[in-house]
Amino acid sequence: MTIDSPRAFLTGLYQSAVAAVSAEKCLPAFLPQPPAHGRTLVIGAGKAAAAMAHTLEQHWQGHLSGLVVTRYGHAAPCRQIEVVEAAHPVPDAAGQEAAHRILQLVQGLSADDLVLCLISGGGSALLALPADGITLQQKQSVNKALLKSGASIAEMNCVRKHLSAIKGGRLGLACAPARVLTLLISDVPGDDPAVIASGPTLPDASTCEQALSILRKYAIAIPPAVEAHLASGRGETPKPGDPRFARQQHQIIASAQQALDAAAYAARAAGVAAHILSDSMEGEARDVALVHAAIARQIAARGQPFSRPCLLLSGGETTVTVRGNGRGGRNAEFLLSLALALDGHPAIHALACDTDGIDGSEDNAGALYSPESASRAAALGLHPGRMLDDNDGYGFFCALGDLLVSGPTRTNVNDFRAILIL
Amino acid sequence: MTIDSPRAFLTGLYQSAVAAVSAEKCLPAFLPQPPAHGRTLVIGAGKAAAAMAHTLEQHWQGHLSGLVVTRYGHAAPCRQIEVVEAAHPVPDAAGQEAAHRILQLVQGLSADDLVLCLISGGGSALLALPADGITLQQKQSVNKALLKSGASIAEMNCVRKHLSAIKGGRLGLACAPARVLTLLISDVPGDDPAVIASGPTLPDASTCEQALSILRKYAIAIPPAVEAHLASGRGETPKPGDPRFARQQHQIIASAQQALDAAAYAARAAGVAAHILSDSMEGEARDVALVHAAIARQIAARGQPFSRPCLLLSGGETTVTVRGNGRGGRNAEFLLSLALALDGHPAIHALACDTDGIDGSEDNAGALYSPESASRAAALGLHPGRMLDDNDGYGFFCALGDLLVSGPTRTNVNDFRAILIL
Repeated sequence: MTIDSPRAFLTGLYQSAVAAVSAEKCLPAFLPQPPAHGRTLVIGAGKAAAAMAHTLEQHWQGHLSGLVVTRYGHAAPCRQIEVVEAAHPVPDAAGQEAAHRILQLVQGLSADDLVLCLISGGGSALLALPADGITLQQKQSVNKALLKSGASIAEMNCVRKHLSAIKGGRLGLACAPARVLTLLISDVPGDDPAVIASGPTLPDASTCEQALSILRKYAIAIPPAVEAHLASGRGETPKPGDPRFARQQHQIIASAQQALDAAAYAARAAGVAAHILSDSMEGEARDVALVHAAIARQIAARGQPFSRPCLLLSGGETTVTVRGNGRGGRNAEFLLSLALALDGHPAIHALACDTDGIDGSEDNAGALYSPESASRAAALGLHPGRMLDDNDGYGFFCALGDLLVSGPTRTNVNDFRAILIL
Repeated sequence: MTIDSPRAFLTGLYQSAVAAVSAEKCLPAFLPQPPAHGRTLVIGAGKAAAAMAHTLEQHWQGHLSGLVVTRYGHAAPCRQIEVVEAAHPVPDAAGQEAAHRILQLVQGLSADDLVLCLISGGGSALLALPADGITLQQKQSVNKALLKSGASIAEMNCVRKHLSAIKGGRLGLACAPARVLTLLISDVPGDDPAVIASGPTLPDASTCEQALSILRKYAIAIPPAVEAHLASGRGETPKPGDPRFARQQHQIIASAQQALDAAAYAARAAGVAAHILSDSMEGEARDVALVHAAIARQIAARGQPFSRPCLLLSGGETTVTVRGNGRGGRNAEFLLSLALALDGHPAIHALACDTDGIDGSEDNAGALYSPESASRAAALGLHPGRMLDDNDGYGFFCALGDLLVSGPTRTNVNDFRAILIL
């Protein structure tokens, strides 16, 4: 891998980053001893759930059974653990049915039993089981509105936990008195395990009142049944310190930082100084891009704060407040805004991709930007400013032939951005 | 200066930064020889115009006359050059009258004469003379709407240039056939001299058509006379390469980079590693703050991309899309968003100020943030999230007693942000 081809170099870094946080690479070291007497039940949800279950089967000494739910197209060939596919980011009946069955599976366990719970990003939508008195349709309408509102993932999950029969620690409670080990691949900035997939096995510090104020903050239309549920406190979650979680443990096995470290390692091996700005950057994608562009320009123009050539890396989760009608996820939006700000700067190349291989709801992981992007776009008659106004990052990079398509990676540590300054 | 008192340390850095870009420090080295035969006329506009004129008088060998316009409260005791004060950021009749008189002063000059034009940030509003057929009131209504729209300074100035009788090179044209030297203190990201104060003496590459599309982009109500003026092309400016500018020169004498370099130098002298991220950062203030917070947290948690203790510095000009009814400029907004994101992190202190000493339209230069800000705010019953929603950064830091009030600094190189990670 060399920087003679910046495009291949950046693509290679993305592949290194994703490989470093795969279930195959990260899960085996964290597997416990099988229980002496009881059985081992495997449950889980998320984009990596099937890959984690598959890796678990390959390394486990003893019998396994159970059920994990993953996104359509994310299955893996498990032999003992059942894999169900369901819809993401908007839940469907398949996810609801799987959530229901998982709650049934953990009924009647004994203190000798071990539950291995495999959790990764996307699990929140995939494990959608509305609380009593709320319909899936009502939950979906709130969820869809939240996804378009610019709310952070933490805010969305606070709401989801309080409308759910399984999130916010309720699944953990249902496993009692069995021992529970939750293994997590983190897709949330800050790696709070209670936020990943809305923490089905972890106590939850957030409250019904907070959920209600988040819905009001983003002016979400609240169905009356949802409002009544939240206002009554019936949706309250078990809180940290609850003694019913005394036999439960959790472990994050992969995170954004590991992906960034792997990319930095690969870059340095190719002789390029690599600088990790943050593993948990948040903010509106187009503005986060302006700051990255400003730092890259400073490096190019003045050798501050780093001398060139060098690589800037960042992870986290940006948000997009949708105002237009275009296509594309937050990584395409980030990169289109970056393209506008860099305006063909001759020394700067960039990649922005989601590590799960799916940027938003499209078929691409993200896209690539090069100094020629601006002139090639002009030659094609594209108007990048108008396309950004229309949230059409996908359309822009698709027209340029610069989408990066990887297919589902079956892991998920959120955004991956790499900017090469030559 | 030591980091034993982070607050005094950061305030000292701000003072070092401002001192490094004062007229007194920067102007003398760029003064030309007086003309052999003709007279020397001084004109100018901006927050630093009076300070520049005052310094010029102290260093000039020979007779001077002329007129500069500055903001109310920004005058300096000149003896030969008349100083007029006018309104900023919304123009008033005093500025219009001064612009009119400046255009009269440069009539009838000879090729032997020298015009020294002293330009700094704020000059755009201070030199407000509407083009024929447009009233000051119409220009003001467009300007007020632009200031609240989230438009960048470059976009605002493109519009202003095409509604003006003096901007976008028109003042330069009026000086012919005299020699013209324009000395500029830059308050614009990227230091393009044609953008500073809307470039009254510099040719302008932007067009009437662009001005119109900017007004439409931000959904500004366009008075019919303004629309007719732009659509007819009557407002077109002289373009780069115009031979009528052959005897005109310009020189930037102070910029954001110089202010940041001075602060970095002062920090290093105190034993603190200083890293300049950018001299030209743009974007929505609250999102730019999230990125700064993410980098600061990465440094505190992982020693990436810099080891601590260290100082992060950045300049540029953020924007605020006003949605609430609170008080405060973009630096208070930046710092309130930073405060929310850092949430009392014990190792991080910060300052955000405008180098002109006026954040937005308030009486403060900016504000200071410390780890105790969050708990002190809670003790006072303040809700930082709600106050940010209401764009009330001033109210927040005023209640904490953490505004930084310097009074007008009589220079202007835009934003100054310093974040200390201990």
